[in-house]
Amino acid sequence: MAPPELVADLLDGKHRALARAITKIENRSEGYRDIVAALHEHTGHADVVGITGSPGAGKSTLVDKLAAEYRERGLTVGIIAVDPSSPFSGGAVLGDRIRMGSNVGDMDVFFRSMSARGTLGGLSTATSDAVKALDAFGKDKILIETVGAGQNEVDIVKTADTVAVLVPPSSGDDVQMLKAGILEIGDVFVVNKADLAGSDKTVQELRGMLEMRERDPDDWEADIVETVANTGEGVEELLSVFDAHADWLDRTGKRDELERKRYAEEIRTLLRNDAGALVEDEVERRGGMDDLVERVVRRETDPYSVADDVLEPFRDAVRHND
Amino acid sequence: MAPPELVADLLDGKHRALARAITKIENRSEGYRDIVAALHEHTGHADVVGITGSPGAGKSTLVDKLAAEYRERGLTVGIIAVDPSSPFSGGAVLGDRIRMGSNVGDMDVFFRSMSARGTLGGLSTATSDAVKALDAFGKDKILIETVGAGQNEVDIVKTADTVAVLVPPSSGDDVQMLKAGILEIGDVFVVNKADLAGSDKTVQELRGMLEMRERDPDDWEADIVETVANTGEGVEELLSVFDAHADWLDRTGKRDELERKRYAEEIRTLLRNDAGALVEDEVERRGGMDDLVERVVRRETDPYSVADDVLEPFRDAVRHND
Repeated sequence: MAPPELVADLLDGKHRALARAITKIENRSEGYRDIVAALHEHTGHADVVGITGSPGAGKSTLVDKLAAEYRERGLTVGIIAVDPSSPFSGGAVLGDRIRMGSNVGDMDVFFRSMSARGTLGGLSTATSDAVKALDAFGKDKILIETVGAGQNEVDIVKTADTVAVLVPPSSGDDVQMLKAGILEIGDVFVVNKADLAGSDKTVQELRGMLEMRERDPDDWEADIVETVANTGEGVEELLSVFDAHADWLDRTGKRDELERKRYAEEIRTLLRNDAGALVEDEVERRGGMDDLVERVVRRETDPYSVADDVLEPFRDAVRHND
Repeated sequence: MAPPELVADLLDGKHRALARAITKIENRSEGYRDIVAALHEHTGHADVVGITGSPGAGKSTLVDKLAAEYRERGLTVGIIAVDPSSPFSGGAVLGDRIRMGSNVGDMDVFFRSMSARGTLGGLSTATSDAVKALDAFGKDKILIETVGAGQNEVDIVKTADTVAVLVPPSSGDDVQMLKAGILEIGDVFVVNKADLAGSDKTVQELRGMLEMRERDPDDWEADIVETVANTGEGVEELLSVFDAHADWLDRTGKRDELERKRYAEEIRTLLRNDAGALVEDEVERRGGMDDLVERVVRRETDPYSVADDVLEPFRDAVRHND
């Protein structure tokens, strides 16, 4: 199926086309750029929620419950589960998770896992492209689920409008994780497994840390919600915090601001990667890096002259257009 | 003074020209690229030693003693002290340090401090350019001294042929620092202030950590040297380790390998920065990033199409040359 039909089928509500589009996006297959470009004008309708937390915090169970509750309310849901450390992707096995974990048997919860496997252009670019596919498809709510606390994960959840950080009760590790940059990006902190001992202490510690974080008076004030994902306790409250945050984004114009920042970042990343690829082609055309280095070693040229030479055609191109 | 005369004066052994060249390099002033390019063919003769360690480890005292000992042996010395966190640069105040700390009153120990202030292109590029100036000038030994343990510092000392890591006795912090990437880059570990209690324990811990690090059988086996920089104890032993490492680099062909890797990295960094600047010019020519984002927000275009458009002249340039 050529991209134009794939896009038409996706916009027509065919889940198979959606799945194929996301596979192309993830693998950076021929034509994926045209697909994402064509989908863009159909995006901007979904609420995107990012959910992060260390392994074992209960993310998948909570995400399943959230999806089920959205379905109860008649909303359609797309889920992208991103694991930067896993080599495994695809919806086949993990796609069953939703159905096992809840009563939802329909395809209106579309689940997809993604890994670092195929995404040379960066997992956060692939994630935001996949979100666009779900958004253009017409999903009302999109959940991005990601493990852990590294820069990768921060970049990934930053593609969401609302970010929830899961914290299991009294885990020293997780407090460390919060210090490592996750604290800044959370709009709501979820103390999951709130039926376990230590959850009050964790809520207290969290509150302390949130009070310490620097914020403008007109910033969103992060909430803390206690949940028991297994039983569904607290899930409704969490959803109302998501809704409140979405309202706040609209009311204050922050959604616009976020969107613009995100697009600027997206464009910059694409320009950097694409320009890098063009420069690499030019290096190859000139005999490859080893050859250039050899000439520098022999003192026939030097690194600055090499850079000037390689970029000369690009510099000319900019000049010609003036 | 135009660059050609500046270069001629520098090659002629005028310290004032050397100082001016390094200032231009640090500030990325007009003409600095031509200077470094012109100097390149005169480089490749100096031994470059990088010295890193946390504040208070005794780096400056040790570096002064090393310089004095080199002078005793009739060798000329250049020192670049890099502090990525400091806004202060220049040789004026700190230049006196050498003279105070030792008996060396001549200019054959050339001292220069550099900070992150003016070096937009990256402190490690500026450092390696400054090293080239010292090398072309004819300094026999070049010492790069840098504080701390971040990625910045690792990049900086990587421009050296031999890397010494200073560790003060029994400091929990420093063991942490070693874990954070510094352990991998040390060719020699210096337990300074070896007259303090706890130094034996530190040597033991270090030995344990070094035994754990992965290495090929033909890799250099890192040494541990105990010094008391204040009294000069251990300085001669340290110098003989530097010499042994330099011999090993020559004997095994590793110096060549290192040099090639470094030039490739240097060229890649320059290409990335220069191409980035060209792309930014092109973005400006098209009305600037805000304008492009506005059109993406209005769904008149999308990020991939923007990237394609902005890079079109560059793509054409590469095609034309085929």
